[in-house]
Amino acid sequence: MLSTSHDRNAVPSTGPFGYSLPLSPSGQASMLTPPPWHFSGEVIMVEYRVDPAAAARFLPPGLTLGADPGAAAAVFAEWQWCSASGEELAEPASNQFAEFLVLIGCEREGVPVARCPYAWVDQVVPLVRGWVQGMPKQFGVVHQSRATAVGRGGPRLAPGGRFHGSLSVNGRRAVEAAVTLNGRTDAKPFLHTVPLAHTLVFPDWASTGAGRPTLVASEVTDVEFSDVWKGEAELRFLDVLGEDFAELFPVETGDGYVFSYSETLCGGRIL
Amino acid sequence: MLSTSHDRNAVPSTGPFGYSLPLSPSGQASMLTPPPWHFSGEVIMVEYRVDPAAAARFLPPGLTLGADPGAAAAVFAEWQWCSASGEELAEPASNQFAEFLVLIGCEREGVPVARCPYAWVDQVVPLVRGWVQGMPKQFGVVHQSRATAVGRGGPRLAPGGRFHGSLSVNGRRAVEAAVTLNGRTDAKPFLHTVPLAHTLVFPDWASTGAGRPTLVASEVTDVEFSDVWKGEAELRFLDVLGEDFAELFPVETGDGYVFSYSETLCGGRIL
Amino acid sequence: MLSTSHDRNAVPSTGPFGYSLPLSPSGQASMLTPPPWHFSGEVIMVEYRVDPAAAARFLPPGLTLGADPGAAAAVFAEWQWCSASGEELAEPASNQFAEFLVLIGCEREGVPVARCPYAWVDQVVPLVRGWVQGMPKQFGVVHQSRATAVGRGGPRLAPGGRFHGSLSVNGRRAVEAAVTLNGRTDAKPFLHTVPLAHTLVFPDWASTGAGRPTLVASEVTDVEFSDVWKGEAELRFLDVLGEDFAELFPVETGDGYVFSYSETLCGGRIL
Amino acid sequence: MLSTSHDRNAVPSTGPFGYSLPLSPSGQASMLTPPPWHFSGEVIMVEYRVDPAAAARFLPPGLTLGADPGAAAAVFAEWQWCSASGEELAEPASNQFAEFLVLIGCEREGVPVARCPYAWVDQVVPLVRGWVQGMPKQFGVVHQSRATAVGRGGPRLAPGGRFHGSLSVNGRRAVEAAVTLNGRTDAKPFLHTVPLAHTLVFPDWASTGAGRPTLVASEVTDVEFSDVWKGEAELRFLDVLGEDFAELFPVETGDGYVFSYSETLCGGRIL
Repeated sequence: MLSTSHDRNAVPSTGPFGYSLPLSPSGQASMLTPPPWHFSGEVIMVEYRVDPAAAARFLPPGLTLGADPGAAAAVFAEWQWCSASGEELAEPASNQFAEFLVLIGCEREGVPVARCPYAWVDQVVPLVRGWVQGMPKQFGVVHQSRATAVGRGGPRLAPGGRFHGSLSVNGRRAVEAAVTLNGRTDAKPFLHTVPLAHTLVFPDWASTGAGRPTLVASEVTDVEFSDVWKGEAELRFLDVLGEDFAELFPVETGDGYVFSYSETLCGGRIL
Repeated sequence: MLSTSHDRNAVPSTGPFGYSLPLSPSGQASMLTPPPWHFSGEVIMVEYRVDPAAAARFLPPGLTLGADPGAAAAVFAEWQWCSASGEELAEPASNQFAEFLVLIGCEREGVPVARCPYAWVDQVVPLVRGWVQGMPKQFGVVHQSRATAVGRGGPRLAPGGRFHGSLSVNGRRAVEAAVTLNGRTDAKPFLHTVPLAHTLVFPDWASTGAGRPTLVASEVTDVEFSDVWKGEAELRFLDVLGEDFAELFPVETGDGYVFSYSETLCGGRIL
Repeated sequence: MLSTSHDRNAVPSTGPFGYSLPLSPSGQASMLTPPPWHFSGEVIMVEYRVDPAAAARFLPPGLTLGADPGAAAAVFAEWQWCSASGEELAEPASNQFAEFLVLIGCEREGVPVARCPYAWVDQVVPLVRGWVQGMPKQFGVVHQSRATAVGRGGPRLAPGGRFHGSLSVNGRRAVEAAVTLNGRTDAKPFLHTVPLAHTLVFPDWASTGAGRPTLVASEVTDVEFSDVWKGEAELRFLDVLGEDFAELFPVETGDGYVFSYSETLCGGRIL
Repeated sequence: MLSTSHDRNAVPSTGPFGYSLPLSPSGQASMLTPPPWHFSGEVIMVEYRVDPAAAARFLPPGLTLGADPGAAAAVFAEWQWCSASGEELAEPASNQFAEFLVLIGCEREGVPVARCPYAWVDQVVPLVRGWVQGMPKQFGVVHQSRATAVGRGGPRLAPGGRFHGSLSVNGRRAVEAAVTLNGRTDAKPFLHTVPLAHTLVFPDWASTGAGRPTLVASEVTDVEFSDVWKGEAELRFLDVLGEDFAELFPVETGDGYVFSYSETLCGGRIL
């Protein structure tokens, strides 16, 4: 059982308790554990460019396009995660998920940040945890090649290694990408190094005034990159997700990257 | 495309827009449509009794056990749904879901209501829509027998017809139920006729003071029952979901019911 | 436990036993039960026409196009099934599956039959059982509207009722169909009333000479149709399944049907 | 498109063609490609012991318990695969699968081999391909920890690294295992180094005499092991899969191993 007690992080202050729904006598039924959450992931990332005017239409008040208007990235990742106790590590059936997200380069008061207009994951706990942070995660089927050390069934982390990623939503293929490695690079892909600026917002069911949109960033520690491999990228968005998503289709495809990445997500702060 | 425009129900008031995340220039990328939502479902329901002291530990301030302490129900349902426009009806891949929930009989200021301490669904949109209402939906695999008119592959809505339901969570069987029909009844199963009293609560990511727990009820119209079939019930909870859930194990199993049910969910109000 | 014993239908004659793999000491580990298998299903069916020359290329020696060359049908069905013992009825998590199949009208020695060049199901047991019969079932995600008696969440079996079906394969939408009901009909859809002529064939792994293609038909009893509803149909095949499948795209769409259907499958015979 | 032509490996000799069902004009609709198949996998393996008398009941004529009666292994693996053309590498949505299998140590004419009485995979193509080889693959949900190079979300390939595996079948947890690494070893886990002896058998649908059980082995080339890590193992079988499977429950748990492994599967031969 998770060690969350109702003495810490508990909402509400009288029973039943829980960091999130479901509330229960001990608070341990909560679907979400409180942060910190530790993440380790394998990433396939493609830099690309969108129409700057379209990018601007996805930015809320307080964010501007900044120095490199139209910079964007498509990111595939397979994650494993655990809470402070590490207990989730014993359940690979629920502590793994795959994710695809789009990032748009922008600025907050002159500081480079990234905006995530769309994200898809294949597990529910990270999806709801995303909404807690203001990250607009939806449900999708995400697959990506895994680096292998032996045999011909998968790609190597070596020049010529070819990594693929795909996203399907509601039974329709939406995104396909491939990266063919050239070699290691010292430069990290920029949009994976800046804070994400999310909008906390949630439907106000009973007109209590809750859920007014608030610009926030996540507090992240223990960021670690493995060696970063760089290469030629291909990126294809298919027209199955509506007109808004289509505004962010690539007008140009840049470099591709393959690397491992880890971070600890500790909480949020108002931007 | 869904017809939601940013003139109605839109949050926030300047772009990007959306009833929910993801926000987008037109508001149409929103994962959730605004209410009303129309539901049509096939229900297998088993009345049972829990330890009243355990039931009380699941009730928030403002709810009391009422006249029939320990009354509970286990409800399996297969739903189809659509929004006001009805457009979702064209996509059976996403407008259907299965649900299992537990109900506890209780009272709000002397008025009978039901509390739902646990619920599981097999699709993400109804899960998040549940959290919007304060309904603690988690992800589960729910299956139930479907009434058939021909052949031997399924049960009939007739005396002797035998209907089964099951819930699995994270690859573990958690609940099994069966109802063997005796005949039609004029009496609707009580806990399916009273309002649900939920607690609106959501993790307060950036310490903005949002998400203080609020007791709410849903505003429901156009309730319709088909003929209600009643019979002998079996109900088995397996010990795979932790100690809190185990507090609600049946101490006695009552009648079983099979029926169709529909409602329109229009919004929420503070209780 | 299933009641299959190694005294009946058992292959091989000395242990371990089983109607199919896996073999085990009692024979009860067999993934498949021996026939008879009882099926009850809800069907949405669209008659259409293909290029007769293309249809002919899908027919093996012994089958000819017959009196109505180019007649075809697209069939969506949600099935429940059980073996002779009926024990599977207690497990709705495994005795239900959805299916989409294509039928081509043809003849065997002057007798009308149907050929199924493609079929998809969403469960493994019916998939392998299909291969036992020579039915080329693959894995797909199949969804269809369910008739409802109450509310606005689904269609009615009544004039104007609109039923949808969809098939996705490997995360790509492949087929979409809709039927809008006009009224009941006395005429059953022809291709659902004739025997299916399959080719028994299986890769010959160890060059034992097994698996030579054999034209067979299934022995079916206890066929039952509910009332058959007829209406206007729409049918769309998307180009995601390769050139062979594309040969069978509709050149004309005919009538649509919605009905319940049951049969018992008893075994196979050489045609 | 796959490059399989009807000039090679095609069954039958006149159209429609295909290495397997579905048959089609070009043969390219075949669900299975012909061998060779290249596999690269990440393996978590636990050696254990079963009751030798139970093991013997799972052996067909021609196999004997051999020098180490009761030797067994539980193997979790995540695979990527491709055919000769390598085209499947571009589709991670379909060229990856997870597998759990049980191995029993035995002998064929004095030569050590392994018998696989049970196997589960989470994709249909490898399942049917297993039946082509006589490998009794069923459908299960298999998860295992993935080695990570950064962060706290997963285990390291290092002393103390802890790897977990689980199998669920029909929504019921069936097997759980864990391995805590001590260090590298030069000794490969024995049952992963010997040939598998399968029984080719398939239900004889039309009483053609096909499908007589035949003892076969697979022809494998290009076997490669990464470094092999060894450690303390835990292994738990839960009683949800029937009496035959329960005969193979561990009476003693041995060492655990974590390693990468690759092979090319070229065909089968009669033993």
